[in-house]
Amino acid sequence: MENAVILIQCPDHKGIIAKISDFVFRYDGNIIQSDQYSTDPAGGRFFMRLDFTFDPVKVPQSHLEKEFDILARTLDAVWEIHYASAVMRMGVLVSKADHCLAEVLYLYRTGELKVSIPFVISNHPDAAGMVGQSGIPFYHIESTRGSKEECERRILETACGTTDFLVLARYMQVLSAPFLQSYGRDIINIHHSFLPSFKGADPYQQAYERGVKVIGATAHYVTEELDGGPIIEQVVEPVSHRDNAAALKRKGKSLEKIALSRALLAHVEHRIIRYRNKTIVFA
Amino acid sequence: MENAVILIQCPDHKGIIAKISDFVFRYDGNIIQSDQYSTDPAGGRFFMRLDFTFDPVKVPQSHLEKEFDILARTLDAVWEIHYASAVMRMGVLVSKADHCLAEVLYLYRTGELKVSIPFVISNHPDAAGMVGQSGIPFYHIESTRGSKEECERRILETACGTTDFLVLARYMQVLSAPFLQSYGRDIINIHHSFLPSFKGADPYQQAYERGVKVIGATAHYVTEELDGGPIIEQVVEPVSHRDNAAALKRKGKSLEKIALSRALLAHVEHRIIRYRNKTIVFA
Amino acid sequence: MENAVILIQCPDHKGIIAKISDFVFRYDGNIIQSDQYSTDPAGGRFFMRLDFTFDPVKVPQSHLEKEFDILARTLDAVWEIHYASAVMRMGVLVSKADHCLAEVLYLYRTGELKVSIPFVISNHPDAAGMVGQSGIPFYHIESTRGSKEECERRILETACGTTDFLVLARYMQVLSAPFLQSYGRDIINIHHSFLPSFKGADPYQQAYERGVKVIGATAHYVTEELDGGPIIEQVVEPVSHRDNAAALKRKGKSLEKIALSRALLAHVEHRIIRYRNKTIVFA
Amino acid sequence: MENAVILIQCPDHKGIIAKISDFVFRYDGNIIQSDQYSTDPAGGRFFMRLDFTFDPVKVPQSHLEKEFDILARTLDAVWEIHYASAVMRMGVLVSKADHCLAEVLYLYRTGELKVSIPFVISNHPDAAGMVGQSGIPFYHIESTRGSKEECERRILETACGTTDFLVLARYMQVLSAPFLQSYGRDIINIHHSFLPSFKGADPYQQAYERGVKVIGATAHYVTEELDGGPIIEQVVEPVSHRDNAAALKRKGKSLEKIALSRALLAHVEHRIIRYRNKTIVFA
Repeated sequence: MENAVILIQCPDHKGIIAKISDFVFRYDGNIIQSDQYSTDPAGGRFFMRLDFTFDPVKVPQSHLEKEFDILARTLDAVWEIHYASAVMRMGVLVSKADHCLAEVLYLYRTGELKVSIPFVISNHPDAAGMVGQSGIPFYHIESTRGSKEECERRILETACGTTDFLVLARYMQVLSAPFLQSYGRDIINIHHSFLPSFKGADPYQQAYERGVKVIGATAHYVTEELDGGPIIEQVVEPVSHRDNAAALKRKGKSLEKIALSRALLAHVEHRIIRYRNKTIVFA
Repeated sequence: MENAVILIQCPDHKGIIAKISDFVFRYDGNIIQSDQYSTDPAGGRFFMRLDFTFDPVKVPQSHLEKEFDILARTLDAVWEIHYASAVMRMGVLVSKADHCLAEVLYLYRTGELKVSIPFVISNHPDAAGMVGQSGIPFYHIESTRGSKEECERRILETACGTTDFLVLARYMQVLSAPFLQSYGRDIINIHHSFLPSFKGADPYQQAYERGVKVIGATAHYVTEELDGGPIIEQVVEPVSHRDNAAALKRKGKSLEKIALSRALLAHVEHRIIRYRNKTIVFA
Repeated sequence: MENAVILIQCPDHKGIIAKISDFVFRYDGNIIQSDQYSTDPAGGRFFMRLDFTFDPVKVPQSHLEKEFDILARTLDAVWEIHYASAVMRMGVLVSKADHCLAEVLYLYRTGELKVSIPFVISNHPDAAGMVGQSGIPFYHIESTRGSKEECERRILETACGTTDFLVLARYMQVLSAPFLQSYGRDIINIHHSFLPSFKGADPYQQAYERGVKVIGATAHYVTEELDGGPIIEQVVEPVSHRDNAAALKRKGKSLEKIALSRALLAHVEHRIIRYRNKTIVFA
Repeated sequence: MENAVILIQCPDHKGIIAKISDFVFRYDGNIIQSDQYSTDPAGGRFFMRLDFTFDPVKVPQSHLEKEFDILARTLDAVWEIHYASAVMRMGVLVSKADHCLAEVLYLYRTGELKVSIPFVISNHPDAAGMVGQSGIPFYHIESTRGSKEECERRILETACGTTDFLVLARYMQVLSAPFLQSYGRDIINIHHSFLPSFKGADPYQQAYERGVKVIGATAHYVTEELDGGPIIEQVVEPVSHRDNAAALKRKGKSLEKIALSRALLAHVEHRIIRYRNKTIVFA
């Protein structure tokens, strides 16, 4: 038996759930989990995640997809299908701070995060040791003012065709619009603030200066607008006047690790649908 | 158009969602929200909440129910249907501490909690003023050692036939098993601790003595086991060594109000299914 | 015995705590609680809150204050003293949304918030009933485009000399710089977002549009910069894609009530020191 | 200059803070941070943490300690002093689950947790690799029914004289009373539940069966009563009916790491005073 997840979105109208769940039933599939959300049952947009098993011997994948596409067209739907047998390939980018990298490698090693990791790229050599222990290839690609374009070209060469998505596990370089267009796939970033507060550089310093009483971390998809992409997960924690910028930074590490882990799990389990710079994240 | 919610549970097997959503489709209903949960798609138990609209002129309620019952029997399902036009009738019991009562009356007055309140009963006269201002009948029914049976008899007389459920908004008397059996409907209690820690009397004192660093409040259905019924909602907050029992009590008030409010909203919106001393609470 | 709280701030250097606590000791005072904070023991700024009892028969208040001032001058300190016997007078301003007002009145009625409330002012007549039940004078002072100046003049007339501070319990009018200067005392506002995100109007709508996964409420002192004053308390709660702007608004009410209550308690208990657009809030 | 922390507790009475802070002042010390707490200023117990610098050339440690002891006797105080120059030696015990171990080693490696780690002991061989990479000696000491006494004897041999405290980073063996007495120093355990709920084995399974809506992790000092020692830190997180025991276990890992990290930091920074099976944890 094969396990598949269909993510679908379309204009909401009567009978969608019936049609889709009936489709699975007709092909003798077994629904493991079904989640729906509608912005408005009258004229809104409908989102669905369908996690089901089927017998690929009886119903080949290509046939299933062709038939589902016919249904989807009648619903004016955008959809995608993911098979559990196809492990997602995740490229990792990191700079100096390595706590998020350590968390990602731990989740990878224990199998909690079901991905393959073809490489870790860093603009600093520091993480070479930590990555080396895991057996994952490590590439040091410097990114200075003059070499940014060259750097991005080398990342693209490394990542295109070998990855399904990238994670910026505290990668402190802003990726250019041409890079994003060329790569063309999802990129998940962890930003060390409670967005939209404190975009850009040194968010803990910004938070300290504003005197906030709660700090946060935000995992989001990268878009051309810096720290402005669809938010996947946010985690927060109270702080006090005693916490200077260094203390905020230290406390924030746990938040960053948690927010990033949850976002990666949700992404890899195909629980996220993007729509209009927001995310629907099914539980 | 009428709005209805069906709550259903049955053994999980293939095609349930398809059959139920198709049922709604056949009767020209429009699904507002559909939520499912299965303890295990292979031989587990399946739970579903279906929120939909239909035209009672085309499909009378009695017909809809008769037809759905036929489907439910084929699924070996337990089910219930609630119509938005039938406002739930909530009886309120309270003792001296009136913060939860104040919250409930506020939510009632603003229409956030869509219920009618036929009465507030208290074993103390203190709340008469607060209740009086709301126009809701207030009954002072004392409960002393000797009068407990008589007290419960009077509550039953007042509540049976006039209420769909009761809320113990900090009612500090333990209701007897015979009372629970006679009343026969749901009773929601707010307990001022993070259950199962600190059951019974004076939980804030117990929490203080144990030196916990987080306190909580728990809203749950009442069963014959004291503070042992299905948990609906739990809310928590960090505390420190500076918080003595009085401070915990004061801080806990907010938690109690939040936990109780959420539980009442979930109950009134028919988002809760009870199963084996637990709850499925759909979002 | 009289209970007093001294709040003091000065450049940090050796021996401050010794000098101040010795001062209390010499006047036979008994320290109930002492809290200190230094931004940097080497050349930073020192903050202290000293809660103590003394015998006003042996040491008259005026004498105590004169002597302490001499000490404070040697420390180059800014300080203030508050006596528990002097109940703070809190003026309340509110617009249509009355959940924060209800919370404030509840805390006032139960004695948890030890203040007197000389009046409630609103630019809408809606709260008259709720305030009337509490026996507090209610003034309806309209504030339209043309009448803003006149409105602020009337608020000043009502509040000057009768209040020690004002609370904006969801008062939806921006107070002008001249008003703030004329009033000259603390004003506490509750803003229904996690500042500095979503300043200004309709923060829940803003939060919905940005697709945040956590919402918040912020209690802060009012300054001439809109929603830019020193933050006292922030409270947050996770939300999901299912929460539309109306749901955020509903969920946010609890947060607003909690943040405002805590801020008012801290202010009235003289646990807050303001410094450079930030607050030190002692526990 | 040397940095020292004094932890002191005694019956509360007038002038304690003055006497202690004056002591530091007389020896030309500079108070970095001073925290106090009293259970009751009238006849309660007083706790103080004093973090200060002094010049060991002018005031040798032995002299300082002798003089302070004289003062402490007049206060009927129990006290201890810790010097920043003396790095705490932390022995680590672990079983199969290695997420807490990974966190501890990360904090150690980055210098956030200022300790030396003379060894990691495990009753399973699994962690050998992870520990090996860090250069810390790893000892595999099996603990079966028959060999428990022998196992504890070997741990004692390894830990006595080489460690200032032990951390049970998910060590799943109950240490016997004789062991605790022989070791005679602090032992910190991480328990994977919100104590006092779900003591003993398989707390996530217990939590699942009870149907709680919030889970937690508790770091505490080990005493002879299983999971009954003074609580240092508790961290919690909401869960839902969707989370089975395995999901709770997975979600709980983050909580365990956070609770344990915070407890270790507080312990190593000498911010904890134990009293009557509770802790005062200064911020």
